[in-house]
Amino acid sequence: MHRYSEPLQIDEVNLPKPKGEEVIIKVGAAGVCHSDIHFMHGEWQKTLPVKLPLTVGHETAGYVEEVGESVKGLAKGDVVAVFGGWGCGVCINCKGGDEQLCMHARWPGLSQFDGGYAEYMHIPSYRFLIRANGMDPKMLAPLTDAGLTPYRAVKKIRRMLNPGSYTLLFGVGGLGCYAIQYLKLMSPTNVIAVVRNEGKARLAREMGADHVINSKTEDVISAIRKITENRGVDVSLDIVASRDTLDVGFASLGKKGTLVLVGLMGETLNVPIMQSVINEHKVIGSLWGNYNELAEVIALARKQKLKTPINQFNLMEVNKATETLANGKIDGRAILVP
Amino acid sequence: MHRYSEPLQIDEVNLPKPKGEEVIIKVGAAGVCHSDIHFMHGEWQKTLPVKLPLTVGHETAGYVEEVGESVKGLAKGDVVAVFGGWGCGVCINCKGGDEQLCMHARWPGLSQFDGGYAEYMHIPSYRFLIRANGMDPKMLAPLTDAGLTPYRAVKKIRRMLNPGSYTLLFGVGGLGCYAIQYLKLMSPTNVIAVVRNEGKARLAREMGADHVINSKTEDVISAIRKITENRGVDVSLDIVASRDTLDVGFASLGKKGTLVLVGLMGETLNVPIMQSVINEHKVIGSLWGNYNELAEVIALARKQKLKTPINQFNLMEVNKATETLANGKIDGRAILVP
Amino acid sequence: MHRYSEPLQIDEVNLPKPKGEEVIIKVGAAGVCHSDIHFMHGEWQKTLPVKLPLTVGHETAGYVEEVGESVKGLAKGDVVAVFGGWGCGVCINCKGGDEQLCMHARWPGLSQFDGGYAEYMHIPSYRFLIRANGMDPKMLAPLTDAGLTPYRAVKKIRRMLNPGSYTLLFGVGGLGCYAIQYLKLMSPTNVIAVVRNEGKARLAREMGADHVINSKTEDVISAIRKITENRGVDVSLDIVASRDTLDVGFASLGKKGTLVLVGLMGETLNVPIMQSVINEHKVIGSLWGNYNELAEVIALARKQKLKTPINQFNLMEVNKATETLANGKIDGRAILVP
Amino acid sequence: MHRYSEPLQIDEVNLPKPKGEEVIIKVGAAGVCHSDIHFMHGEWQKTLPVKLPLTVGHETAGYVEEVGESVKGLAKGDVVAVFGGWGCGVCINCKGGDEQLCMHARWPGLSQFDGGYAEYMHIPSYRFLIRANGMDPKMLAPLTDAGLTPYRAVKKIRRMLNPGSYTLLFGVGGLGCYAIQYLKLMSPTNVIAVVRNEGKARLAREMGADHVINSKTEDVISAIRKITENRGVDVSLDIVASRDTLDVGFASLGKKGTLVLVGLMGETLNVPIMQSVINEHKVIGSLWGNYNELAEVIALARKQKLKTPINQFNLMEVNKATETLANGKIDGRAILVP
Repeated sequence: MHRYSEPLQIDEVNLPKPKGEEVIIKVGAAGVCHSDIHFMHGEWQKTLPVKLPLTVGHETAGYVEEVGESVKGLAKGDVVAVFGGWGCGVCINCKGGDEQLCMHARWPGLSQFDGGYAEYMHIPSYRFLIRANGMDPKMLAPLTDAGLTPYRAVKKIRRMLNPGSYTLLFGVGGLGCYAIQYLKLMSPTNVIAVVRNEGKARLAREMGADHVINSKTEDVISAIRKITENRGVDVSLDIVASRDTLDVGFASLGKKGTLVLVGLMGETLNVPIMQSVINEHKVIGSLWGNYNELAEVIALARKQKLKTPINQFNLMEVNKATETLANGKIDGRAILVP
Repeated sequence: MHRYSEPLQIDEVNLPKPKGEEVIIKVGAAGVCHSDIHFMHGEWQKTLPVKLPLTVGHETAGYVEEVGESVKGLAKGDVVAVFGGWGCGVCINCKGGDEQLCMHARWPGLSQFDGGYAEYMHIPSYRFLIRANGMDPKMLAPLTDAGLTPYRAVKKIRRMLNPGSYTLLFGVGGLGCYAIQYLKLMSPTNVIAVVRNEGKARLAREMGADHVINSKTEDVISAIRKITENRGVDVSLDIVASRDTLDVGFASLGKKGTLVLVGLMGETLNVPIMQSVINEHKVIGSLWGNYNELAEVIALARKQKLKTPINQFNLMEVNKATETLANGKIDGRAILVP
Repeated sequence: MHRYSEPLQIDEVNLPKPKGEEVIIKVGAAGVCHSDIHFMHGEWQKTLPVKLPLTVGHETAGYVEEVGESVKGLAKGDVVAVFGGWGCGVCINCKGGDEQLCMHARWPGLSQFDGGYAEYMHIPSYRFLIRANGMDPKMLAPLTDAGLTPYRAVKKIRRMLNPGSYTLLFGVGGLGCYAIQYLKLMSPTNVIAVVRNEGKARLAREMGADHVINSKTEDVISAIRKITENRGVDVSLDIVASRDTLDVGFASLGKKGTLVLVGLMGETLNVPIMQSVINEHKVIGSLWGNYNELAEVIALARKQKLKTPINQFNLMEVNKATETLANGKIDGRAILVP
Repeated sequence: MHRYSEPLQIDEVNLPKPKGEEVIIKVGAAGVCHSDIHFMHGEWQKTLPVKLPLTVGHETAGYVEEVGESVKGLAKGDVVAVFGGWGCGVCINCKGGDEQLCMHARWPGLSQFDGGYAEYMHIPSYRFLIRANGMDPKMLAPLTDAGLTPYRAVKKIRRMLNPGSYTLLFGVGGLGCYAIQYLKLMSPTNVIAVVRNEGKARLAREMGADHVINSKTEDVISAIRKITENRGVDVSLDIVASRDTLDVGFASLGKKGTLVLVGLMGETLNVPIMQSVINEHKVIGSLWGNYNELAEVIALARKQKLKTPINQFNLMEVNKATETLANGKIDGRAILVP
């Protein structure tokens, strides 16, 4: 990435020798994420300012190629997932286990650190890798963001997901497919997925949704009222977060209902004060996931056979992959394979 | 109260004989609350529709006068605080301990049940009374709402209030005075109170605030930045909840910061999506308090000598009391004494 | 029950007219519980002293027969489950939602209140009934204790049951069958059931256990080490709580591991101090369940088709039923049907 | 320390040059702990096996002397507290924020890493240091264990410490003095301290205990019954954990009461099954504290003027210091100053 809003360019770059805790991995697969598109179009220049050129890609898995002299527990050839929420390791959030919320974050492919759209990737510390021998990097890469982000969101609300509860889900794409599966694997909640076409409706049902509402053909709020017998939902998990989904999501909350913000499409959520106090509503933001949560996602994938619909592209076709995604033509997750 | 927006009228009414679990209390004191003003002006006709006439007053303490045959643990003359969040006793929130969030709430003085602006009050069940012999009803009455509401809010955020944390407080009135005291009694957090004049500033300091910002003479946001060394606050506890306080409160949140909605002045809070997700902000509404929380407030008052600034009016002066409050001329809490 | 350790006797008794909140139900089914056996043999005379005669039975479901004048939401013929943890409704635990932990508990069939081994049962308040029209009382009765008790235990530990975690379960009987199902329905934990014969092993697998250890043929501790790759289990859920199961359960805990006491077979658990501090072990007791938890269990049964293996006896065969249970010859739950 | 149970010996050793993340500190003060005595007498050879010689001391503060090339945020002369729960940084507990519970712990002065009974100390990573410029290392050193350990214990139970609650405390020594102060600074609980002489009674009152029971002159259990009006205590915080204190502590628990194990004097706690289930008692072990907790303790010390009674010895008098402590002749905390 040499300039915002221009096609990415394939360059030859030197591979540094890893020192200390550093590791060089051979990329097995790199996920292509909506965040990459936002980032490449310069939409986040203020929030995440960087100097170009830079290698994009924050969703990576591969094989250990070479390790620094202080690296422990990893050897050449080991399959690894790259935990991308690189933190300083000392601030209150890093020390508290949430490195992705580091006060001095330095995410690969989204900050001055080169990411995974490459043949090799330089990792500043083995503490950002999770060994996963026996797993396929192509399955593993999407877990590090598309799989991890909804997992953290679901864990935040898990204790509300009792038998008889309802969870409303907006967004049945790369993240949403995992979200439905987690909700069903981790709780007995009834999942209501809101979609915009029949393809997505089918996908939602396949992933385990109990109810599917097509917002093109049904009035979402009255459909929810009917399903919940006027009680409203316990949680609205919004992976889209557009003006529309937020308003519908908030209006659908029952007493003590919680809205979880995961998506980044809209700019503002309007919270009506009186209604929020009278019903003790909550709104909570959820960011990516931490290292242990990624380890749990991988444990789940290893055992429970999480379904991950994948669209594979060759690394050389990177611009085609990002375009296809930007045009909404990807079902599931796009990955680049060098 | 015979008509919305007209002065209250003193009527003679019959006192029913209590049956079953019912209790008649002789009112010792009844607090006058901003909610009563909103209610009497008909602002809440949609949220809380009632048939008039009705006796106002949801903040009451007094003496047991007569009990029904199934009442247990209470005798004539006992001092009692009236827990006002009357619930059905069977719905999920009542059974879960939060009767004030009952699905079929029937709050005295705010629904079809007569309240405490009277000489006697009819209580449908002894389960809504807390015995507090040895305490003065004049001190007790304000605890049942002005004292209870910020207590619940503080309990909701208590686990975030660690040494080194900052809590921003808007509203140093009837509720806010208690809020500061709870924050200091229940945690080592640093309290930053925002006020609009020197009288309130003095009051805030008396109650225990560590820092006081006068929004008339200082830029609140930069004052907060300076106090917190740019970290932002951990909690913004908003007892006003006007457009202004909400915007400043949200903008002042540090990473993982939480905004608690208690006040009802404004209509809408604007939550910026990107900022909320990146920082994992939370917004939580807090409604009144439950029975056990009221018992805890009373235990605190009994032991710790909570300071309660009181303005006493005779029941006959009820219209003068409500006017004075509406004009912002009450410091602390106004109470009516029959 | 006229005398401890003697056969129960069928008597004709008068049916009182329900007043106020009272309800008379026609018993549809009454579960026979190990607790009844302990109680009938006088083993609990100190903990639960009663005057005889008394009707035993604390696990009941049936049909509303007649209601007092203050009863709300119930009509003749409604199917109801009897929540047995009758509380005073005012103490800190009742008001906090845990009536089964009431400071002044009065459990039917285990205190001075007559239980469900009868054709009709007198319920002191409709607040102890859960309407469940459309469900069969024979399925419903066992849920009120055998189904409810392990449910509460599982909820207490649910947040520890992450992907990759291990839960050890002792006791695959009336309660244990439900426990396995809850663990699998509410979490992705790996369940290791310990049994003493092949019949129970089969049952455990049918219910969903991931691993089954037969303590007659295997060394339990080394089997657990192998399964958990020396990490130990996250939770030991002990529905037996004999000296043996407790010692093995404690020794199998990994770091931060928790032992949950549900069973009542043993007298004492020995907690090694150094090991408990160094590993931050926890021991928690779990008692029956509360009203909302019973409602959740019923919601689960209604939707998820919980498997409930049942052994049906006629009410007249009550002594045969209790004997068969005492001899360990019941698979699943024994119920009495009038 | 050259041999178990022999006096410590002062040796000249070489000071390595710090590399990478390493730091050399000039010791300002080193606390002398009961754990050091246990360790030096070889009582923990099984739990914590080491090769001798070794420098003892896990409670250290001082000044940065020299830093490796990758160290961030520290410069020569900075005052630092040494967080002693050195972990691997990668296991589930380290990544979850509890490094002191690391699966591969390597505590200085208690494992193969040299501790703080020295003029200089080698720290393997700046991530184990907390900068505290402006504070005195003599005050700071005791905070890293005597101050930290009860802090974590208090945080674990904080949400139970509501107004009207009672907390029983055993052990008013180095740790107990802090425990009382935390309980009062962080909650409105009523503290009942149990002591064995008048000197300790005075100390307990000075630190803020609401009630003090002298076990030499009073029957502890009946004294507690009287204070709590037969309700029992909510928490028993046991910093001694001898057979006696444990039995009394457990017997004093009210419904839902929790016993916290911090001390290591006894071998076994006997938990009566029936009582624990019926009352839902809990027993929880608490180990040292984590990095953020230490930062909180330091924040508290900085602001709230925590009282720390100190007994100062010169480093050359190390054997005198350990002897005096072993003989129970230290009030507060003994520290060594080079």
